[in-house]
Amino acid sequence: MTDTQIVTAGVILIGDELLSGRTQDTNLGTIAKWLEPRGVRVGEARIISDDGPVISATVKAFSDRFDYVFTTGGIGPTHDDITADCIAAAFGLGISEREDALDHLRERYSEDELNAARRRMARIPDGASLIRNPVSQAPGFQTKNVFTMAGVPSIMRGMLPDIERRIKGGVTLKSITVTATGRGEGDAAAPLAVIEANNPGVSIGSYPFFNADLRGVNFVARAESADVLAAVKMELEALVETLGG
Amino acid sequence: MTDTQIVTAGVILIGDELLSGRTQDTNLGTIAKWLEPRGVRVGEARIISDDGPVISATVKAFSDRFDYVFTTGGIGPTHDDITADCIAAAFGLGISEREDALDHLRERYSEDELNAARRRMARIPDGASLIRNPVSQAPGFQTKNVFTMAGVPSIMRGMLPDIERRIKGGVTLKSITVTATGRGEGDAAAPLAVIEANNPGVSIGSYPFFNADLRGVNFVARAESADVLAAVKMELEALVETLGG
Repeated sequence: MTDTQIVTAGVILIGDELLSGRTQDTNLGTIAKWLEPRGVRVGEARIISDDGPVISATVKAFSDRFDYVFTTGGIGPTHDDITADCIAAAFGLGISEREDALDHLRERYSEDELNAARRRMARIPDGASLIRNPVSQAPGFQTKNVFTMAGVPSIMRGMLPDIERRIKGGVTLKSITVTATGRGEGDAAAPLAVIEANNPGVSIGSYPFFNADLRGVNFVARAESADVLAAVKMELEALVETLGG
Repeated sequence: MTDTQIVTAGVILIGDELLSGRTQDTNLGTIAKWLEPRGVRVGEARIISDDGPVISATVKAFSDRFDYVFTTGGIGPTHDDITADCIAAAFGLGISEREDALDHLRERYSEDELNAARRRMARIPDGASLIRNPVSQAPGFQTKNVFTMAGVPSIMRGMLPDIERRIKGGVTLKSITVTATGRGEGDAAAPLAVIEANNPGVSIGSYPFFNADLRGVNFVARAESADVLAAVKMELEALVETLGG
């Protein structure tokens, strides 16, 4: 990978509770914002149920398609925690209880507390390297380009530092935001397309907000060059002035 | 479809801003919670970028796989709003500016305000039926089993009532929750599996929470029968009592 290459990630969020609306996912945003300054862009995310064949197929497809894959969820001690087995199945690997993973668990649990359920958290696909979990010790793991992490947000966040050194990023994009309040995005659409066409390498998104109190649009421009972005920012501010209040 | 059939939905959330972490999606939860009492279960959700071929391929695959498909995002007036064209492409349909859709827009905009950008919001795939948007008038639309809605949450929610009559649901699942505070889910894993095995038709999920203040687990049981659930609730409460504080 060179410094000018675009490096991509896929994110797989695992758990019936995310699909029922019982739990609001926040892990995707955390991962995306952590990756962005490291020069890795999330290309797609999937929220899938606790269904073994679906988990395995999604992991395999994303591993082939993206430079890195992040999964969250399904590595706890209960019967619905099947992610480790599914990762092993995805790559045709064996899986077994590993002594190094048990050592992590022993930092937290006594031998008495290390019952059969908790020992399941030491089942790791063959050849995977462990990911440190400083919050609750049960480790995540890396298999090829796939990082398997916990679903509980505070635990997932705790695993990111041990992943950092394993990531080789690419070009980082900078962004600026210009806000137009009181106007719909329909007023800006045509001049916006002109600004984007005149500035190669800049992508401009248009994100309306529409509340009881306030409506308007955020224009977000992204590019590699801070100088180019500064010029685009002035063009966008001039556009907003033209639109009026 | 009979009353005992399981009816499924796929949800497609469209927009680069969701993948960059700039915007936190809430539409999936809104749609899932709206569908649940209507007897429709979300089987998978995908968060995809503003990329035409990816949007079309995902829509087609989900349309084949699920009873209903809901898309959000990409139906505004700007150059990055390409969902309507992608839906048409997914099904090999033509697309054009439609008079009935313009009539919706005229409830909000004067002829002067109906510039070329805003008229793009009246581009609808051939044969689609419009979905009322009482918030900002630009309509969504239904193509086969796919409902295409706005991405702004307040506007998306406003479209749901006009979709209700088009949905034929299946079995509704009821759920109960029992919370164990101060214990990890590893203590409960084995007895939990026994309770699930002894109660066919009941699925039990185990959702740990882990904050600075509090740790514990929510056990959520789902089933069609309220009587069965009431019995399972008592078993779960007895389990929590056994676990101790």
